[in-house]
Amino acid sequence: MNKRNCIIGQSGGPTVAINASLAGIIQQAKKDGYDHIYGMINGIKGLLENTYMDLEEAVKNDDDLHDLKTSPAMYLGSCRYKLPDQSDDPVFEQLFHKFEELQITDFFYIGGNDSMDTVAKLSEYAKIMNSDIHFIGIPKTIDNDLMGTDHTPGYGSAAKYVASSMLEIAYDSSIYKLKSITIVEIMGRNAGWLTAASALARTAYSDAPDLIYLPEVPFDQEQFLDDIAKVFEKKRSVIIAVSEGIKNKDGDYLDQDSRYVKKDAFGHILHSGTGKVLETICFKRFKCKVRSIELNVLQRCAMHIASETDIEESFMIGSKAVHYAKDHSGVMVVIKRLSNDPYQSEAAVADVSQIANLEHKIPVNWINDAHNDITKELYDYIYPLIQGEVNVRYHNGIPSYINIRHLEK
Amino acid sequence: MNKRNCIIGQSGGPTVAINASLAGIIQQAKKDGYDHIYGMINGIKGLLENTYMDLEEAVKNDDDLHDLKTSPAMYLGSCRYKLPDQSDDPVFEQLFHKFEELQITDFFYIGGNDSMDTVAKLSEYAKIMNSDIHFIGIPKTIDNDLMGTDHTPGYGSAAKYVASSMLEIAYDSSIYKLKSITIVEIMGRNAGWLTAASALARTAYSDAPDLIYLPEVPFDQEQFLDDIAKVFEKKRSVIIAVSEGIKNKDGDYLDQDSRYVKKDAFGHILHSGTGKVLETICFKRFKCKVRSIELNVLQRCAMHIASETDIEESFMIGSKAVHYAKDHSGVMVVIKRLSNDPYQSEAAVADVSQIANLEHKIPVNWINDAHNDITKELYDYIYPLIQGEVNVRYHNGIPSYINIRHLEK
Repeated sequence: MNKRNCIIGQSGGPTVAINASLAGIIQQAKKDGYDHIYGMINGIKGLLENTYMDLEEAVKNDDDLHDLKTSPAMYLGSCRYKLPDQSDDPVFEQLFHKFEELQITDFFYIGGNDSMDTVAKLSEYAKIMNSDIHFIGIPKTIDNDLMGTDHTPGYGSAAKYVASSMLEIAYDSSIYKLKSITIVEIMGRNAGWLTAASALARTAYSDAPDLIYLPEVPFDQEQFLDDIAKVFEKKRSVIIAVSEGIKNKDGDYLDQDSRYVKKDAFGHILHSGTGKVLETICFKRFKCKVRSIELNVLQRCAMHIASETDIEESFMIGSKAVHYAKDHSGVMVVIKRLSNDPYQSEAAVADVSQIANLEHKIPVNWINDAHNDITKELYDYIYPLIQGEVNVRYHNGIPSYINIRHLEK
Repeated sequence: MNKRNCIIGQSGGPTVAINASLAGIIQQAKKDGYDHIYGMINGIKGLLENTYMDLEEAVKNDDDLHDLKTSPAMYLGSCRYKLPDQSDDPVFEQLFHKFEELQITDFFYIGGNDSMDTVAKLSEYAKIMNSDIHFIGIPKTIDNDLMGTDHTPGYGSAAKYVASSMLEIAYDSSIYKLKSITIVEIMGRNAGWLTAASALARTAYSDAPDLIYLPEVPFDQEQFLDDIAKVFEKKRSVIIAVSEGIKNKDGDYLDQDSRYVKKDAFGHILHSGTGKVLETICFKRFKCKVRSIELNVLQRCAMHIASETDIEESFMIGSKAVHYAKDHSGVMVVIKRLSNDPYQSEAAVADVSQIANLEHKIPVNWINDAHNDITKELYDYIYPLIQGEVNVRYHNGIPSYINIRHLEK
């Protein structure tokens, strides 16, 4: 029987679920008896520089696998590197030479839009060269903006972090008897999925967020101020979820608005962020306590509050990728939702060329008419994805995550 | 036998442990057979406006008690209200009239510096008036800056959040092969205890934070840049923990430095925060990727990652307060550390007039000579306080916290 060697890479921005997919691939590849399981360090860019590792050796037993599955960010490191459009570029030959050297039969790449572009180009090149290597993409992104899949691994955990943090911020904001506005800025430059997840913070005891602003519909400053005034008629503490990527009707990002561009004494432009811009606008109108909070990178790395549904699905997707590699190439493994209550999903494949470089945004009919909240359909879509808690181990009072010293080299 | 009625209030800024102390008082007061257990809503300011509640009715059973113990912020709401210095001010008579009306025998106030000032003044006034009411203070603050106690309830949980978040940020920052600086801004205007807790993020697999800057020692910008350059000699990703309250040698806060004060188009001064100021300084020197992250209010409200040691101690302190009320007044319940390994502590009392309005800062010999890290003594001091995880219940994918609708009125 011929040798079967696979190589796995991670690319793009981090999530807490991308290592679960890696763990899923490793476990299944071991079961399927691959001769070698390699990991590219820092994606294909790293591979071009000859940095890769033996994953069978690094992830020896079930304990290692659990630690990998429940560690945030990217065990293999990442790169932001886009392959050229011309298939006669020497980089393709270099990469395939590397594959030949390692006798690679299957190539797995876990990532977002750009990573799927890599999978598409490599599988195209393989066809041209009559290569037998199978190229499989595994999705991940907290932004949930990939086409072809019901949702993306990593989104559910980030959504759970956003909803839980929003709830805790609401409690924090409740204690004083004074008029206040709290603005929570959430990641998502073009797609509002993550900001929409803030609606999941609502409970019988807390209505926050009172208002939600998404990048899919134009942001109108006067309407925004009117919306707040209306909430103030009923309560004294207004909590607002806002996507970093909201734009005015001309399509300009809010923190590009020249009236709010800040410069330091050296003339450098300081991008203060959408939350800070809104903070100024609100204070000017309402003259009350205004605070803006940027959830920042914690929404994509807070493994300690990951969604069990997300982590298990991400693991499953990784394991299925090995299965699909037997007779597919140039595909991305996707998640199909079978039912919502009880929630059930399964894996499938989609042509990666139909997915790469496209953006999946919130359908406008899942945003309310006033453009300041989401509909029940969107709530029901997100709900199952944040369910369940992950058994993260603690050591010395902090979460115990896998060794990533190899990324320091 | 005479009636025994107590009233409890919360005051100052929120923490995740202040409701545990409240739960401890309620449980012990029930056991001790108090006739009524009242709660002031929004502290003594609320009481003056006649807003209070029956806590025996609100917290009926063990389930309610668990929910209260594991809910962030302040179940009773807060106020920022300082009693006047003159004991002939009519507000004292108003308050004592209220106490008489409710037949209060014991008064419990959970809070920080200002709240202990309230306890001191009320107990002084009681002496003048020959009143029998006992006034007991229960400490809380994430800042750990109260005198007379080994540490404050609320600090351990905030410290655990800071250390865990720092670790997750370190993993997030590890993935790219490029030179980068990550600055994490942590709360603490005058005391650096919480920023120091970032050192607890260090594991066998991660050195972050590489540098720590505290408000107890003067901040020197040139030294800061030299420190970073030195770290860059050994690694490409530098992670820095910085207290929001660092000051230059003249005692000025960094974000007050006129060279960095930003204004919007309307001329309003924008306090961008210490992290943003350092971001600009670093970018100017190193021309690499620089990101600043403000942990913001989540460090004081993220109940979902609270320290078990902190929550249990806060509960214990509340319960002991009821015990001390039998024969003490004008005291604060304090925590005495008995041993570090195994960690053991017990409650004691201290004269509240020796505590109010003072600030407990990090001793300078617990900061290294280079002023960019902490010593082992400080590490060992913090370590036991962040140990253990709290069993927070989840409902619908988010933490399940107690009903706080009464604060909306």
